[in-house]
Amino acid sequence: MHQVDLNCDLGESFGVYKMGMDEEILNFVTSANIACGFHAGDPSIMRKTVRLALDKNVKIGAHPGLPDLVGFGRRNLNISPQEAYNMVVYQIGALYGFIKAEGATMHHVKPHGALYNMAASCEKLSEAIAEAVYKVDPQLILFGLSGSKLIHSGEKIGLQTAHEVFADRTYQHDGSLTSRNQPDALIHNLDQASMQVIRMIKEGKVRSQQGVDVSLKANTICIHGDGPQALEFARNIRQVLNTSGISVQSINP
Amino acid sequence: MHQVDLNCDLGESFGVYKMGMDEEILNFVTSANIACGFHAGDPSIMRKTVRLALDKNVKIGAHPGLPDLVGFGRRNLNISPQEAYNMVVYQIGALYGFIKAEGATMHHVKPHGALYNMAASCEKLSEAIAEAVYKVDPQLILFGLSGSKLIHSGEKIGLQTAHEVFADRTYQHDGSLTSRNQPDALIHNLDQASMQVIRMIKEGKVRSQQGVDVSLKANTICIHGDGPQALEFARNIRQVLNTSGISVQSINP
Amino acid sequence: MHQVDLNCDLGESFGVYKMGMDEEILNFVTSANIACGFHAGDPSIMRKTVRLALDKNVKIGAHPGLPDLVGFGRRNLNISPQEAYNMVVYQIGALYGFIKAEGATMHHVKPHGALYNMAASCEKLSEAIAEAVYKVDPQLILFGLSGSKLIHSGEKIGLQTAHEVFADRTYQHDGSLTSRNQPDALIHNLDQASMQVIRMIKEGKVRSQQGVDVSLKANTICIHGDGPQALEFARNIRQVLNTSGISVQSINP
Amino acid sequence: MHQVDLNCDLGESFGVYKMGMDEEILNFVTSANIACGFHAGDPSIMRKTVRLALDKNVKIGAHPGLPDLVGFGRRNLNISPQEAYNMVVYQIGALYGFIKAEGATMHHVKPHGALYNMAASCEKLSEAIAEAVYKVDPQLILFGLSGSKLIHSGEKIGLQTAHEVFADRTYQHDGSLTSRNQPDALIHNLDQASMQVIRMIKEGKVRSQQGVDVSLKANTICIHGDGPQALEFARNIRQVLNTSGISVQSINP
Repeated sequence: MHQVDLNCDLGESFGVYKMGMDEEILNFVTSANIACGFHAGDPSIMRKTVRLALDKNVKIGAHPGLPDLVGFGRRNLNISPQEAYNMVVYQIGALYGFIKAEGATMHHVKPHGALYNMAASCEKLSEAIAEAVYKVDPQLILFGLSGSKLIHSGEKIGLQTAHEVFADRTYQHDGSLTSRNQPDALIHNLDQASMQVIRMIKEGKVRSQQGVDVSLKANTICIHGDGPQALEFARNIRQVLNTSGISVQSINP
Repeated sequence: MHQVDLNCDLGESFGVYKMGMDEEILNFVTSANIACGFHAGDPSIMRKTVRLALDKNVKIGAHPGLPDLVGFGRRNLNISPQEAYNMVVYQIGALYGFIKAEGATMHHVKPHGALYNMAASCEKLSEAIAEAVYKVDPQLILFGLSGSKLIHSGEKIGLQTAHEVFADRTYQHDGSLTSRNQPDALIHNLDQASMQVIRMIKEGKVRSQQGVDVSLKANTICIHGDGPQALEFARNIRQVLNTSGISVQSINP
Repeated sequence: MHQVDLNCDLGESFGVYKMGMDEEILNFVTSANIACGFHAGDPSIMRKTVRLALDKNVKIGAHPGLPDLVGFGRRNLNISPQEAYNMVVYQIGALYGFIKAEGATMHHVKPHGALYNMAASCEKLSEAIAEAVYKVDPQLILFGLSGSKLIHSGEKIGLQTAHEVFADRTYQHDGSLTSRNQPDALIHNLDQASMQVIRMIKEGKVRSQQGVDVSLKANTICIHGDGPQALEFARNIRQVLNTSGISVQSINP
Repeated sequence: MHQVDLNCDLGESFGVYKMGMDEEILNFVTSANIACGFHAGDPSIMRKTVRLALDKNVKIGAHPGLPDLVGFGRRNLNISPQEAYNMVVYQIGALYGFIKAEGATMHHVKPHGALYNMAASCEKLSEAIAEAVYKVDPQLILFGLSGSKLIHSGEKIGLQTAHEVFADRTYQHDGSLTSRNQPDALIHNLDQASMQVIRMIKEGKVRSQQGVDVSLKANTICIHGDGPQALEFARNIRQVLNTSGISVQSINP
């Protein structure tokens, strides 16, 4: 039987600023990637979000980003591999503090935004990030863009990995995501998004914007937790997976 | 035989900005309190400083501070106990990441600057900080101003504590430190500083600025790592302790 | 004929984080206090908000705050008068850049949150802030809590001032605002808020929480731009002022 | 008679962290570029540095950088032209506040580090920065890498510009600076640096690392204010210019 994990970026509020419907979206996902204070999140938000995820029995991962709060970690920053290593160790550790304080366990790590994208295509950055994760805890599962350099670097160093796919993003012929700057980056149609996901899981293929099929693995699907459609989208995906006979469950370590 | 620990705040550089003679001062101390990125320090500095301390076989502690980089964590900020708890958990965790990545163990926690001072006199803040330390790891030793509310809160929750005294700071009749705003806050004379320390260790007493003796415990002495006299001061204290028959060693958990 | 200004704190979004209904609230107010990047706001938000206010023909003022983004500038920070001077000059200047770039003029300055409150009661801080405003431009109008030390310091140095009152906040017998920590700090009832405002303008008095009347001047009313009731509240106040024969207009320099 | 300006980046300390010998270097230069709080500097440092420059009768310019304090503004960040415009307006304004408070005038603007380099080669960024400077004050002189896109964009919009050359940096065949990552980026030999400068001023040429001469204009020379050799270097350059009959004076608007 096919199975897949549903993950969502959470804890991306900051101070008085609210982002996302964390509490509601936790009813639909099996893995929560919690922001660690660099691109979003703060110590208060982190504590609350860890508690929320534990209450809902959702697996907790660190979601480290670039130190660019005003840009929400979405702007590429020309960091060295050593700097990438350092900022990932720091952020995993910071979240670990809250998880440990609640007597729980960290399950995975998924880099955020520009760090995620840079790590998908830059071998040296991906190696540095994989090493950071491994050094802090070799039991952690590394989430990365399906088939990307980050996944390869994770496997090379000995980490369990999870190939991530997107329901509401379009793909390029090389398996990369269409840039958010492009008009056709997002899939707004629920049915189209669902069909893309089902095919990725069952056939291991996605139709790229160039019209050719790309092969990829789909261990976990990224669900967005903000925006007006977020909850409806999550509920829909979950339902479609059920009716398609795909089991939704977190990645087993 | 009397014994005492020598601790020093380290890793307080930031980016291109250098502070302190970390490598040199590590030759004289037995405990290193490493800044965690809020009042000073950054992920790169933290990684290097953890490595340095391990190479010199010095015990490593977290040195969490207020989120006030421009004020070096020295300005009181009106935080709630919950906020204090959150920022201490975060910072201990962040440093823990680097220590874990090196396969080592965190030994203690000592709050920095205004957080240290506020915790010394405010019961609710001290309880929140002690709880943060305990929740992350009950084996950690809590360093605080000798006889302060922070020490009491640490003991109450079940943490091992270390009463900290200062060689180069003067004391008030209630056992608090003379504020840095006062002209007589600092002791610049090496002999006077040494004598104050020896008496605190051997007799458990210090002469306050009001001329009366105050009783205190002295488990660990704070050594400063910056300033032109820092290394001479450290070498001198260490020598005086030796000739006074006081064993210099880290706090045993 | 009585007259009064309606002011609102604007531009308090940050990066991807949205706060307030700036565009809508600008239809109801005559003065806009724009955040300057320390407690809220960023260069992009500032540019847009200046443009919005100019389009709606609303007077623009700087709204400098403490450097505490995560606390939204609401937590007291123990700064020196010199530091207060410096951070106010900096923030006024930063906003001035955007106003100058649009060929417009800055009209007033109103400190934010904890800086506003500390300046209301601390003479030295209020003098430092008034001096900062005066030195950058002596034509600027200083907004402060009605009857507070900030207003007195502004007048002393030669600035035009505007006594600010609140429709939806309760008062203490000394003319200070009831702290937001208290349960009775806010007035949620529209009629009660309107009546408080009308009386402050026409009679120069407000009934304190202790049941005694306090005398105060009311040059400008603070209108909040966020929260579910904000627009309704603003519309209502404006209407009540009209029917009470009170002219709503900005402060004339 | 040939003439040239000597400029130096100043005010790059931060909080308790000290960088550069600002007071001493001001004896040798005719233009000071003062950091504005994004890559370095803070309101207190800015106030002091403006005062210092005025006391030494040195022209004051803004030195805006990327919002990357931990990276000292030296790491490329993928900002949009609009974001570049916004952050330059903000920083010019902030420094303007301090200059206005001292009753003085801003003379020029020189972007810092990665912002300077990106603006040298990216037309859209250079146009956005030139527009920011022009909109805030069309009388400001724009300093940029000699012959770069930033200079061209400045001229196109109607700003006076100053072609900047470096005494202690080597050049590439296209007139760009050798990257700091390269081993041969810096010229450590005083005589070699002096000769390079004299030739650039008198002949309008520099020998590139590829061995071919590159034509360039030299209106202003960048002098570094930190490092062990800084003062000796500055004194030497100044002396060599004198003995070569080159007048050292600020750029006349």
